[in-house]
Amino acid sequence: LDSTKWRFGMHANGNRKMSRPLHEGIASTFRARIEAGELPIGTRLPPSRALAHQLGVSRSTVVRAYGELAREGWVEARVGRGTIVRFCPDPALSRQVNWDLLVTPRIRGLDPEFDEVLRLLSQPDLVSFAGGLPDPELFPVDELSQTTRQVLEGDDRSFLQWCPPSGYLPLRRWLAERNGCRLEEVLILTGSTQGLHLLSQALIQPGDVVVVEAPTYLGAIRAFSAAGARLVTVPCEARGIDLNVLQAVLEKVRPKFLYTIPTFHNPTGGTLPASERRELVAITSRYGVPIVEDDPFSALRYDGRSLPSVRSLDTSGAVIHLSTFSKAMLPGLRVGWLIAPAELTSQLSAARGLVDLFVNGLAQASLHRFCENGIRDQHVERVRPIYRQRRDAMAAALRRYCPDIAFDVPEGGLFIWAKLPEGVVARRLLRQAIREGVAFVHGDLFFANGGGSRFVRLCFAGHAPEVIRDGIRKLSTVVARTPRGKPAHNERRLDAFVI
Amino acid sequence: LDSTKWRFGMHANGNRKMSRPLHEGIASTFRARIEAGELPIGTRLPPSRALAHQLGVSRSTVVRAYGELAREGWVEARVGRGTIVRFCPDPALSRQVNWDLLVTPRIRGLDPEFDEVLRLLSQPDLVSFAGGLPDPELFPVDELSQTTRQVLEGDDRSFLQWCPPSGYLPLRRWLAERNGCRLEEVLILTGSTQGLHLLSQALIQPGDVVVVEAPTYLGAIRAFSAAGARLVTVPCEARGIDLNVLQAVLEKVRPKFLYTIPTFHNPTGGTLPASERRELVAITSRYGVPIVEDDPFSALRYDGRSLPSVRSLDTSGAVIHLSTFSKAMLPGLRVGWLIAPAELTSQLSAARGLVDLFVNGLAQASLHRFCENGIRDQHVERVRPIYRQRRDAMAAALRRYCPDIAFDVPEGGLFIWAKLPEGVVARRLLRQAIREGVAFVHGDLFFANGGGSRFVRLCFAGHAPEVIRDGIRKLSTVVARTPRGKPAHNERRLDAFVI
Repeated sequence: LDSTKWRFGMHANGNRKMSRPLHEGIASTFRARIEAGELPIGTRLPPSRALAHQLGVSRSTVVRAYGELAREGWVEARVGRGTIVRFCPDPALSRQVNWDLLVTPRIRGLDPEFDEVLRLLSQPDLVSFAGGLPDPELFPVDELSQTTRQVLEGDDRSFLQWCPPSGYLPLRRWLAERNGCRLEEVLILTGSTQGLHLLSQALIQPGDVVVVEAPTYLGAIRAFSAAGARLVTVPCEARGIDLNVLQAVLEKVRPKFLYTIPTFHNPTGGTLPASERRELVAITSRYGVPIVEDDPFSALRYDGRSLPSVRSLDTSGAVIHLSTFSKAMLPGLRVGWLIAPAELTSQLSAARGLVDLFVNGLAQASLHRFCENGIRDQHVERVRPIYRQRRDAMAAALRRYCPDIAFDVPEGGLFIWAKLPEGVVARRLLRQAIREGVAFVHGDLFFANGGGSRFVRLCFAGHAPEVIRDGIRKLSTVVARTPRGKPAHNERRLDAFVI
Repeated sequence: LDSTKWRFGMHANGNRKMSRPLHEGIASTFRARIEAGELPIGTRLPPSRALAHQLGVSRSTVVRAYGELAREGWVEARVGRGTIVRFCPDPALSRQVNWDLLVTPRIRGLDPEFDEVLRLLSQPDLVSFAGGLPDPELFPVDELSQTTRQVLEGDDRSFLQWCPPSGYLPLRRWLAERNGCRLEEVLILTGSTQGLHLLSQALIQPGDVVVVEAPTYLGAIRAFSAAGARLVTVPCEARGIDLNVLQAVLEKVRPKFLYTIPTFHNPTGGTLPASERRELVAITSRYGVPIVEDDPFSALRYDGRSLPSVRSLDTSGAVIHLSTFSKAMLPGLRVGWLIAPAELTSQLSAARGLVDLFVNGLAQASLHRFCENGIRDQHVERVRPIYRQRRDAMAAALRRYCPDIAFDVPEGGLFIWAKLPEGVVARRLLRQAIREGVAFVHGDLFFANGGGSRFVRLCFAGHAPEVIRDGIRKLSTVVARTPRGKPAHNERRLDAFVI
């Protein structure tokens, strides 16, 4: 320990009155030296053990002094960096607030450059398969305009003032009826993203385990991670989550919940068959593990029969069902919903009072009119054959131009999940692909604990068939020209905006 | 210790192989007994000290075993309640998920019954002074209808698909120009409540100190408390926060930030004079303490001159300015904004990706049109004399009917903060008042650390002058009939919905 720099230690010892606790003497010496500007912001205090040794006091005395300084805001304990000065009273030094020092680790870790990347991906000359949204050309704009006028001319316009935190009552009623549940079980959300956030706030404490599929929705990985969850992954392919692995995992850990996307999975497009849904519910209920069933895409089915939701098969009050008007209708209105046991819904409803009070009333009233008048169902009927055609166009183009790329044709949703040839790393391909005028999302982003480097997620919903064909042709050129290498490990970084 | 019940301890000891750590033997015995249904959900495990004694092992061995069981989710450590079994594999017992056991303490503590209370307060025959919202009769509904149609007929309807997390660019630009700041400093919010939530997520770690005024906005108390802040209060009256006390507080603690409502305070209606604003900035910048300036009401000024915002006086990059379209225009659209140093705004923008991705695009585009076309300014000019008249009507009625109630006349905003006669406790008055047909918010709710039991917050914005007069007359009757007692301490409970 540099005793010149930390000589105040002696001073702390020497000057103290016997009646004053030792730790207080140490703390006040630090306070005085910080106030005098001798220890500028960012200075690391000596390790407690070393200082204790130097002062001839017990380590717990120093730890107590540091704890007091931290509580008072003079210093901050940073994991792996020790105890750092974060206050400086000298005007010449303190004028500018250093926000980087103040922001919590959970937020500091987030990448603020999503906007940049998104701008890149929305270049007008780019055939982007990177998005996760429906085609804006198909939006029911005239219907929205008419409906908005109607609800604004209606008798009850109280939604312009205030809606209950649980949602606009007529819309909740419609959703309860449509989904065969009780009114008390429905909570309207500012997009289903808000559902993930509320569930994170309500159910996850730092260190809690959450089981997610590998791959899974990036937004869920980010939400649960930011809340401090430890993510345990279970493989998930074209026929959904691997139930054998899930069972083995649940033998070993007791997660707060399992997060699953059983229908037209994001990113894989896969669907868990009906019998496996029953088995899933049986397994999780045996272990008392709740399920968060994320279901944004099920209205967008192009082949085959509808399957029962996981929620509908559950008898344990264990399933939270999330859905949204964003994927099948209008993402920009930010309205989703959640169906869960009433005792949880009421808690989430209280929690949303902390978050944004309630959902935009005009959007809720307009969407209710859409639902009530059948506009929503007509819209879904209208877009389904269009998206089916685009899915088929992408599948045909992949078969034609990219015979060495493997994929399954999904029965619905927005995505084809494609596996590049051995030795091709999707992430490394992206920059070149964008130069060629085509974009995708590289698959490793969807794996919470690594993997997926050969995969790409291709959204087929945003372009007409001929544009899709052209984009896949460009992709095939890029893949063909790419030197094959070994997949790198741990290449996961959030450098694409994916919703 | 009941050795019959906890006999497994012996078994743990007796059966273990020597190669297996002691704590593992204890943990696996618990696992087996929980799985066998012998220890149902809710069972309390023996205190670690007692079990250690019984087994003849060190206490740290038991603590380690319990820690392992907790990490695996078999048990949960509850403060003050010990270690509780929270998993049960027996179908007969485990069928129903017990959500109360799963919800985090920060959410469990919230009152889910806001809806109930609100229903009470919005009875049609009630003269409610309890709200914190503008009068819906004055909303610019026709303008909203026209504007919505215009933006939906416009060339760029991309806002129906997606907006940047930082907000719809034209609206951000307008706000930057109007507020004399850089575009990068503006973040559009889903109501300014979301600003409080994002700031809580980004700046508060459990145990951090936040300085708030006493009284202050209830939503801020709830947001910061839920994030784990320790709230330190500084008195605040008609001329704003007490700067002497603030200075004394900052000598002692280093808060993450000071939260203040300098203009037409909620609940007091008070305003910090211009010279004191300069002093406030000088004091906080001396201590390097950021300021969150909540400013929802400043457009609603009825007398006197506009004052500079605290943000405009700051040169340290230390002020976060929050505002909203809710109070002066349309609460139901849920659009607010925040102006902060760009390095913080970009982090908050990233954080909002976790919360709801982006703000309703149609609402942003419509409000931008309102701003751009001058409809917003015209609307504010139109409602100000109406609210001024209502404020004056309430003040006159209070003077006439309630000479023993003290209050100041605010220069703007929505509230009169009134002090009841000695010995009258506002909270105790409310039920009787509602029976008489008048409602208010009792003042103790706005005090983070107690106090204010004699105060009521009266919103004058919601009723015509004659209705206000009638309501105050009813209030006077209730006050006159109330037996005087001693104010009770710590009566604070959230039993009114206040926004």
